[in-house]
Amino acid sequence: MNYEQLFQLIRKKRSFLCIGLDTDIKKIPEYLKEDSDPCFAFNKEIIDATLPYTAAYKPNLAFYEAQGTAGWESLKKTLNYLRSQSNDVFIIADAKRGDIGNTSGMYARAFFDELDVDAVTLSPYMGKDTVSPFLEYKDRWSVLLALTSNPSAADFQYFEDGKGQKLFEKVIETSKTWGTNDQLMYVVGATRAEALKDIREIIPNHFLLVPGVGAQGGSLSEVAKYGMNDHCGLLVNSSRGILYASSGFNFAEKAGEKAKEIQQEMETLLHDGGLI
Amino acid sequence: MNYEQLFQLIRKKRSFLCIGLDTDIKKIPEYLKEDSDPCFAFNKEIIDATLPYTAAYKPNLAFYEAQGTAGWESLKKTLNYLRSQSNDVFIIADAKRGDIGNTSGMYARAFFDELDVDAVTLSPYMGKDTVSPFLEYKDRWSVLLALTSNPSAADFQYFEDGKGQKLFEKVIETSKTWGTNDQLMYVVGATRAEALKDIREIIPNHFLLVPGVGAQGGSLSEVAKYGMNDHCGLLVNSSRGILYASSGFNFAEKAGEKAKEIQQEMETLLHDGGLI
Repeated sequence: MNYEQLFQLIRKKRSFLCIGLDTDIKKIPEYLKEDSDPCFAFNKEIIDATLPYTAAYKPNLAFYEAQGTAGWESLKKTLNYLRSQSNDVFIIADAKRGDIGNTSGMYARAFFDELDVDAVTLSPYMGKDTVSPFLEYKDRWSVLLALTSNPSAADFQYFEDGKGQKLFEKVIETSKTWGTNDQLMYVVGATRAEALKDIREIIPNHFLLVPGVGAQGGSLSEVAKYGMNDHCGLLVNSSRGILYASSGFNFAEKAGEKAKEIQQEMETLLHDGGLI
Repeated sequence: MNYEQLFQLIRKKRSFLCIGLDTDIKKIPEYLKEDSDPCFAFNKEIIDATLPYTAAYKPNLAFYEAQGTAGWESLKKTLNYLRSQSNDVFIIADAKRGDIGNTSGMYARAFFDELDVDAVTLSPYMGKDTVSPFLEYKDRWSVLLALTSNPSAADFQYFEDGKGQKLFEKVIETSKTWGTNDQLMYVVGATRAEALKDIREIIPNHFLLVPGVGAQGGSLSEVAKYGMNDHCGLLVNSSRGILYASSGFNFAEKAGEKAKEIQQEMETLLHDGGLI
């Protein structure tokens, strides 16, 4: 999927929601734990209930890897199921990988060939060598960590040079030359909405993947105010707030309601922005 | 394994070699490709041939993940085999993970509970939140990327504040307060041997994991000169130079010879340093 297609997908869905499939086996409803694949059973119901309201899904690899081989199988089944249900969905593997050369090429193969996702999150610490192998795949995206939503993001991302440039700005400034806005996207936490304005000065056109709305306290309207551009330019992620909206038999129904609620707020924002 | 035990292991093996199990299915000898698990078959022969000469092994996760579920199985079989052959071996999962909180906790569980390795490489970009969940495990290590050996390491790791402190120095300086030298180790590329001297001023006692000797051009004697401390404080990694010393039927024999050659050089360096 390219830049324009992603925008059209958002317009069609009237949503720039991304649902994080951070499926924690300890948190899923008790009755599902008797299923032969509880993780997939949970994801399938979540997908069925939320697909009309979301532009993207973002499985968080750690949650699957923690289950070993079985987790990897659950992940593949989830991705296959998603693809079987709709072509109008953007899939991000939230892997935060950051290796180089040969190894990074292996990861690119794992995610784009083996898992067939649209995008992968990457850590920029090792520089361009991390990203280059991913950029060789057409219509696939590298999503670079820039300014994250966690408390300790400030440990290093705010590290500042003598001229007042912070590390996350340096990362964006440098890496934006590595590929086009059909290939590169950045993670910017919703808890840092005020920084979106400065970031939009460096990259007015790129898509941003924005975690931290909901459970982490970020505001959707603030994010749209400072981050939305003429192609929307945003995918706003919610994970726990949707997945665990209820822990009972009605978890999927409640997840759907929560996703719909966010979608409706997004539809208003897209409308107000003149994008639909 | 703790700091002192790792030192005693190095003394016993008379080696601070770490062999990178970057097993590339495309590079293994043709005849092994008919095995039901070529990756494990290759690793097993490499381990049999090199175990006497090495203190550590470092499977590179990307190479296994690229094979999907089968790769994860090969990795688990390799780790089980290693543990069955010797207790005197330190195992590092080269995963370069870098996530936070809940997710980082999942990774810690995946590596320390599910795979039962001694150490995991981590990317520091997201700050302390990445490392904290790993530090809760006793006698397990977090190996933080500091100054890597790849060409584009300079993109961000040399980013410098107004007082001349570089990002990799900031990472070491800040993170060394998060845990003890029983818990934290740093990646410093052998291609940056001159930087080891400065790094030793910040962390005189910590272990360093040093890639880049051999194929990437780093010098073992330079690394020892600037990086060795009174507990050795070094694990020097070699991957391709050992694994692919020969592509024929004799690949394991040649790998063993290459590992022995490095071990002997290390024995001399340990002896010269008064450590054995």
